[in-house]
Amino acid sequence: MDLLSIQNPTFLKNLNNAQLEELSSEIRKFLIEKLSVTGGHIGPNLGVVELTVALHKEFNSPDDKIIWDVGHQSYVHKILTGRAGEFDTLRKYQGLSGFPKRAESEHDVWETGHSSTSLSAAMGMAIARDLKKEKSYILPVIGDGALTGGMALEALNHIGSEKKDMIVILNDNEMSIAPNVGALHNVLGRLRTAGKYNWVKDELEYLLKKIPAVGGKLASTAERVKDSLKYLFVSGMFFEELGFTYLGPVDGHNYEDLFENLRYAKKTSGPVLLHVITKKGKGYNPAESDTIGTWHGTGPYKIETGAFVKPVNTPPAWSKLVSETVRELAREDERIVAITPAMPVGSKLEGFASEFPDRMYDVGIAEEHAATVAAGLATQNMKPFLAIYSTFLQRAYDQLVHDITRQNLNVFIGVDRAGLVGADGETHQGVFDIAFLRHLPNMVLMMPKDENEGRNMVYTALKYDGGPIAMRFPRGEGVGVQIDEQFTNLPIGSWEVLKDGKDVAILTFGTTIPMALEAADILNKQGISVRVVNARFIKPLDAKMLNELFQLKMPILTIEEAVLQGGFGSAVLEYAHDCGFHNAVIDRLGIADTFIEHGSVDKLLEEIGLTVENTVQRIKMISPKKQKRA
Amino acid sequence: MDLLSIQNPTFLKNLNNAQLEELSSEIRKFLIEKLSVTGGHIGPNLGVVELTVALHKEFNSPDDKIIWDVGHQSYVHKILTGRAGEFDTLRKYQGLSGFPKRAESEHDVWETGHSSTSLSAAMGMAIARDLKKEKSYILPVIGDGALTGGMALEALNHIGSEKKDMIVILNDNEMSIAPNVGALHNVLGRLRTAGKYNWVKDELEYLLKKIPAVGGKLASTAERVKDSLKYLFVSGMFFEELGFTYLGPVDGHNYEDLFENLRYAKKTSGPVLLHVITKKGKGYNPAESDTIGTWHGTGPYKIETGAFVKPVNTPPAWSKLVSETVRELAREDERIVAITPAMPVGSKLEGFASEFPDRMYDVGIAEEHAATVAAGLATQNMKPFLAIYSTFLQRAYDQLVHDITRQNLNVFIGVDRAGLVGADGETHQGVFDIAFLRHLPNMVLMMPKDENEGRNMVYTALKYDGGPIAMRFPRGEGVGVQIDEQFTNLPIGSWEVLKDGKDVAILTFGTTIPMALEAADILNKQGISVRVVNARFIKPLDAKMLNELFQLKMPILTIEEAVLQGGFGSAVLEYAHDCGFHNAVIDRLGIADTFIEHGSVDKLLEEIGLTVENTVQRIKMISPKKQKRA
Repeated sequence: MDLLSIQNPTFLKNLNNAQLEELSSEIRKFLIEKLSVTGGHIGPNLGVVELTVALHKEFNSPDDKIIWDVGHQSYVHKILTGRAGEFDTLRKYQGLSGFPKRAESEHDVWETGHSSTSLSAAMGMAIARDLKKEKSYILPVIGDGALTGGMALEALNHIGSEKKDMIVILNDNEMSIAPNVGALHNVLGRLRTAGKYNWVKDELEYLLKKIPAVGGKLASTAERVKDSLKYLFVSGMFFEELGFTYLGPVDGHNYEDLFENLRYAKKTSGPVLLHVITKKGKGYNPAESDTIGTWHGTGPYKIETGAFVKPVNTPPAWSKLVSETVRELAREDERIVAITPAMPVGSKLEGFASEFPDRMYDVGIAEEHAATVAAGLATQNMKPFLAIYSTFLQRAYDQLVHDITRQNLNVFIGVDRAGLVGADGETHQGVFDIAFLRHLPNMVLMMPKDENEGRNMVYTALKYDGGPIAMRFPRGEGVGVQIDEQFTNLPIGSWEVLKDGKDVAILTFGTTIPMALEAADILNKQGISVRVVNARFIKPLDAKMLNELFQLKMPILTIEEAVLQGGFGSAVLEYAHDCGFHNAVIDRLGIADTFIEHGSVDKLLEEIGLTVENTVQRIKMISPKKQKRA
Repeated sequence: MDLLSIQNPTFLKNLNNAQLEELSSEIRKFLIEKLSVTGGHIGPNLGVVELTVALHKEFNSPDDKIIWDVGHQSYVHKILTGRAGEFDTLRKYQGLSGFPKRAESEHDVWETGHSSTSLSAAMGMAIARDLKKEKSYILPVIGDGALTGGMALEALNHIGSEKKDMIVILNDNEMSIAPNVGALHNVLGRLRTAGKYNWVKDELEYLLKKIPAVGGKLASTAERVKDSLKYLFVSGMFFEELGFTYLGPVDGHNYEDLFENLRYAKKTSGPVLLHVITKKGKGYNPAESDTIGTWHGTGPYKIETGAFVKPVNTPPAWSKLVSETVRELAREDERIVAITPAMPVGSKLEGFASEFPDRMYDVGIAEEHAATVAAGLATQNMKPFLAIYSTFLQRAYDQLVHDITRQNLNVFIGVDRAGLVGADGETHQGVFDIAFLRHLPNMVLMMPKDENEGRNMVYTALKYDGGPIAMRFPRGEGVGVQIDEQFTNLPIGSWEVLKDGKDVAILTFGTTIPMALEAADILNKQGISVRVVNARFIKPLDAKMLNELFQLKMPILTIEEAVLQGGFGSAVLEYAHDCGFHNAVIDRLGIADTFIEHGSVDKLLEEIGLTVENTVQRIKMISPKKQKRA
């Protein structure tokens, strides 16, 4: 059938399983083709084709509420709810979002991007439904990786105790973004291998009924029995103990199996956990045979070969540069230990892990735990490196306050994907970290202008023993500079003048430095002399350099690829007024008080006004030489 | 023995159980007497006397690391580590902290205050120990309430999978701060009632060994077997499934039982969960018979009667005023639902709960889940009231970003205990919320000057449908004003002039308003005319009023009982410079870049400089009439 003609999922009601299978093939073909051009989360979506079709056939969205945890697996849902025609614009500026968006469709009842929120949202919706005395099914779909996130476990616990009607679909795809860690994953693993859990349970219950009440002591040879007992019997009880009716495991690529269990779940009152086994990348060989997560989310690729279309010989990606520098330093300092919350590949820690397998911990999707494990290590005079994306560090804010900064512990936080990230959109932009890190006492925060300075910052951070120190760095590639042979220890709070000038000063750091230099060149030609300062320490500020600027009464433009409220520019304002420089002319360029949607970083920067042109214009407005000739 | 003579816990090694029991009585007597004067967390500490003594006898602190989750139960530990002599200063300014403090003693290896961090810290310490090839025991002590917190569950999962040597002491006191909710608590409940779990397990294993391999189907009458099976057998498996060796339940007030199990735990490799049953308030009748948490933490009391020494006829506590106003409005708007993360008593939600039992959800210690349940409710056109302390809201920062403000949902957040809280100290001061809420797009943030305005703000918040709206209010009592008969809807972003003046303006809100008014009176007499503005909306600002001040070139002093970096004063600075008022004289008074320890609020305010005297002095410095006569 023509996927572009789909308006809503009601057409599914009339299809039989054979027709659904044909539809599934068409959806797979569509996704493989479209994503080969746009890129996107191919693996997760190929894995949930049948599950999504089955949910939309068996239930009535949007009255019944399908909630996609994380949300990168919602493409099939988007096709079935009338959005196939928009896939050419996937993850592009003002195009189709790669995640559920309430503004896109009434079928997107909950927006995601970060993991582990679906069960809590479902609980809120279930309470609302029952208070309104409405009848509807609530269907959070959560992966086995997301289930290890603390808030999902909080929610499981609460849902189980409240006994609300809800069908939790556990999409167990055997591989979340990285191979899962954690005991919960082991439980799921045992369930998977145990075959039909319900059957096993029936068997054992039958047997147990026959046992007369006898006393006695455990024979020392009973270990095998104990193990097999646990193996066969107890695993599913994990969820049952929490108050759920456990159903499964179900073959997530078999319609008959899916419908049978979904129908059974519909008839079951109270919370149900339906354990569905799916295969990431199903139906596309390169993705299906992926074992390390390469095909989780990709750029464009050649369909026939699965080769990625991507520029070669680019400068090193920031994540790799940072992790490899940590690895290099770890050779000389055995106190260095790396911690990642489920992002060993994204954070490019593979090299570190292979060289120091006992000094690298992937704790799973568990940002809070990751941060406090780092704090615990630091109390023992170790040097933890917490590798975490800016947007995910948000989830460890209280651990930053309560455990790390308050105890003033030597934790080095590598704040990856800081600034705009582009196609992943508003849930993933790393634009809040300055505002939420800067007000924490004891925190040092920096951002490098290039790879060489980045390496020196890693060195500085791992030598520093004054407390927590964070280095933010952007998604993507560096600028391609020469790397020094020796490391340099950067004085904490020291800025550097990149270009001298006497009329106006630009204070900026990281990705916006090239823009500032270019604007300065243009302005120079127009007779305005611009000083460009690499304000590489966002906290503490370089007081000496600021005092000089204020004393010279030089107007200042601060530029940051981050939210303006409470950001770096605000720090400069605070400093000026605290020191009594109440007449300092300070203008700030950055992200206004709004969430930034998906699109290419260049397009977004243009939209925000983080451009050379805008910088030139803003400088002209504050320059004492406003009415310039030229 | 003389508790004051204790230097460190080594003396315990030579005491027999009878002597330990005598010591326990003395410790209880000491605590009951000392806390009757100072107040403090009496219930939790009376509950862990034997457990603490046993840990210090059986293990060697500080080589062995005892980690107190939450930490309010560390008083006995403090006595045994040489701090009995400091109990007269408990929770007072520069006195003994009510929580573990690394600066106080080498035996305090980890600082707490917030719950659920101990297991992650223990994991960090265990990794460090093993990398250093040291031998030591790591002993996190965590309550059954704290165990429902997401990060504790994340940690359990990780510890279980890594198989690190560690003895987790589950202090199951049958009642955390409020009666626990959640399925995990039910599991513990079943364990408690199931008697000696290990014995039961042995029995069943013996029986199972005897079963031949047979097939068959579940008889329909097997339900009873299934239930009793689960009841007797599976509960402890919850932890075993996660990879722990489960020991217990142990009578936490019986030395023989405690030592036997601690010794067994010492010999067990891998992670052990030792389930200890204790009774909060043990040995002091008023505390022991408490069922609702009154004796969790108290002020001074009369020992004989258990009557609290506390002023009578005080104005209503803020928590009660807010919750009762929500309750009043809930009578007319059935969409209003209250959510609390384990603080129904602290947030004074008892009245709401009894009137609207199906519209009040205590989700347990689970702040992340609480926030997102509220978001889920809001998607269904409900009006959730999230009652949460400022310091605990820190743990839901990502949920505020990702779920509530990004989706722009109508959640009313009651930010309780905002500002300084006093005796609980640095982990509990509500001083960061302005800095972490203000930079979130779509957020409205306000703080009332008195109870009447507080009621109007609750009304305004629950009528508002433009997105999230938060009202911060302080710990403790209101100012005692007359309450209007009718509610008034406050225009969002509107300030009010409390006192006119023409030389200098003070912009402030909430608790610091009386101080500002008093300073203005003093200054008036000295010839400086001060305008005092109730800046009740922290976000958005009152642009009209600010523009007027800037146009009049009136110097401004902002005052806030919160951190200065990124705070309200910074918002005023940002606004001034964004609007081109680069020469506006703006000075900010608030909390400098440091953590504020425990002490009375008055003493702390003095220390910080939030005083009338300092306000007067700061105003004089920015007043155009600096060189004043008078």
